[in-house]
Amino acid sequence: MSANEFVVAVVGATGAVGQQMLKYLEKRDFPVKELRPLASKRSAGQKVMFRGNEVTVQEALPESFAGVDFALFSAGGSVSKALAKEAVKRGTVVIDNTNAFRMDPEVPLVVPEVNPEALNHHKGIIANPNCSTIQMVVALKPLYDHYGIEKVIVSTYQAVSGAGWQAINELEEQSKAVLEGKEVSAHVLPVGRLNKHYQQAFNVIPQVDVAEENGFTLEEMKMIRETKKIFGDDSIDVTATCVRVPVMRGHSESVYVELKSDFDLEEVRKQLGEVPGVVVQDAIGEQVYPMPINAEDRTEVFVGRLRRDLNNPRALNMWVVSDNLLKGAATNTIQIAEALIGKDK
Amino acid sequence: MSANEFVVAVVGATGAVGQQMLKYLEKRDFPVKELRPLASKRSAGQKVMFRGNEVTVQEALPESFAGVDFALFSAGGSVSKALAKEAVKRGTVVIDNTNAFRMDPEVPLVVPEVNPEALNHHKGIIANPNCSTIQMVVALKPLYDHYGIEKVIVSTYQAVSGAGWQAINELEEQSKAVLEGKEVSAHVLPVGRLNKHYQQAFNVIPQVDVAEENGFTLEEMKMIRETKKIFGDDSIDVTATCVRVPVMRGHSESVYVELKSDFDLEEVRKQLGEVPGVVVQDAIGEQVYPMPINAEDRTEVFVGRLRRDLNNPRALNMWVVSDNLLKGAATNTIQIAEALIGKDK
Repeated sequence: MSANEFVVAVVGATGAVGQQMLKYLEKRDFPVKELRPLASKRSAGQKVMFRGNEVTVQEALPESFAGVDFALFSAGGSVSKALAKEAVKRGTVVIDNTNAFRMDPEVPLVVPEVNPEALNHHKGIIANPNCSTIQMVVALKPLYDHYGIEKVIVSTYQAVSGAGWQAINELEEQSKAVLEGKEVSAHVLPVGRLNKHYQQAFNVIPQVDVAEENGFTLEEMKMIRETKKIFGDDSIDVTATCVRVPVMRGHSESVYVELKSDFDLEEVRKQLGEVPGVVVQDAIGEQVYPMPINAEDRTEVFVGRLRRDLNNPRALNMWVVSDNLLKGAATNTIQIAEALIGKDK
Repeated sequence: MSANEFVVAVVGATGAVGQQMLKYLEKRDFPVKELRPLASKRSAGQKVMFRGNEVTVQEALPESFAGVDFALFSAGGSVSKALAKEAVKRGTVVIDNTNAFRMDPEVPLVVPEVNPEALNHHKGIIANPNCSTIQMVVALKPLYDHYGIEKVIVSTYQAVSGAGWQAINELEEQSKAVLEGKEVSAHVLPVGRLNKHYQQAFNVIPQVDVAEENGFTLEEMKMIRETKKIFGDDSIDVTATCVRVPVMRGHSESVYVELKSDFDLEEVRKQLGEVPGVVVQDAIGEQVYPMPINAEDRTEVFVGRLRRDLNNPRALNMWVVSDNLLKGAATNTIQIAEALIGKDK
């Protein structure tokens, strides 16, 4: 990847994830011939930095995609629904980081370490999974391959940056207000477009995204549905409880896994350590385990607190942390693009 | 309970839990004839408030318990080990809020809503369970009674106040430092007496208490062992992952429960609502669920996010929140004392 061959559009270039996409395209030396940062009308005219140059953000319109090779979308589901197919019509390959197409049977849902083969069948749109799902399936992959997975029960500890800049700013403002004994206001979390907003500072909110009819939230259902789709295996039972915690960056997950066959814990540790992009931090006796502050700005998935279940000898517990803006979003999106150009070459 | 009949000692009277004990003895109008606030030599001479009067804290010594009817211990396991039996020798009934005697087969481990009958067999010392255990078993009790419990998998979101004033101050100081872009120092969490200390502000730490040989932490093993002892049923499988979050007061728990028989979710909601001390806050569609900021200074256990598991029709998921300093500590201790005087009368 030396020549700069591709025109790359980033839709939502001023957002929390979009900014990481620009940074990561640069860092990975992705062969960008022209960068086209796109956003809503409101953000058009802003400047973003790319390879040391200021680039002006343009309004994302159907015609913006003329001549674009890859469009990385991260501007919300409604923008993807309105524009992704327009981009495909113009010959662009869309990698979409929203929930718009993830469960569409025509759209591959890809984590390159887990199911790169799904890329072979794409029809112009490839979906990037939900942040909470990505880090979990990366950690589950060696377990699935070596032992088979019966059941997963996960509880998440999700950072506010998953809800964008507004949520990051809100947590900062609220934290200051609490520490200064001032009144706390809430306008963004847990879900911007819902009626009620709650204080996130020094608080835990057991709601990420809207509710579904069955009493689960959409975030919980994303983890359940996407895990099955990524492994291409509907027989994996997944239960999720998704919770927002007062952390800026880095999602954590407490994961209980029932395997289909016996395992040796030392073997599992070794197998996890061999996965590219996984870092095992597992020595509770020496107080070594993953934490969000150590995962910030890192592209890996960190796994620790590995222990055999005391009741079910075929089950184990683990603790999985990753930067939700990177492997959970920007990094995985660009890894998909890299896999595609690797393939096309 | 009108006459003030009892001499009550509070051991650890200046601590985070001790302070709540004084407040709650007063609020519940516990029949205190004389309050004897005790603490380490270092804290002796300090004043605490009780019923509008300043009372001087005395050093806790064996002879401090002469004439004391009830001694409420919350000054760490080593103090309880050194002094609880001295108090019993002097005719005092000890209610101990540390880990010192909880698993002693001679010592009842009591949550009055769950196993008040265990009080009948006490020999001078009664143990108050761990905060994380108490709120969980209160929520599990109606499930156990109506359906039987096969298995529990719990992940906790624990407030720093469980680690005392120092941890509360540390979270405050660290949060300020982060917001002001200053260097963050850590001296208390996750476990004061261990070597390594980590930033808790805007971070999640998957360690509460020291590690055991099996890879679980002591806090996790407390939840496992104490749940079996309180229900008097070793057949309940419990798995726990205990995590500290940047919250001042109020523990939250994501609890998956497999029952022994079928259930109707509406019935479960009703059964939980009928438990004294339980408040059901369960309407995700209206964004109603328990949160630590709403549980602060409340003595109840709050239960919500009730939903049937999508894979196992005999399993359900719930979210349980309570003030760890109150029902998790001070309130439960005093409820034990109340149960005893109710019995003795």
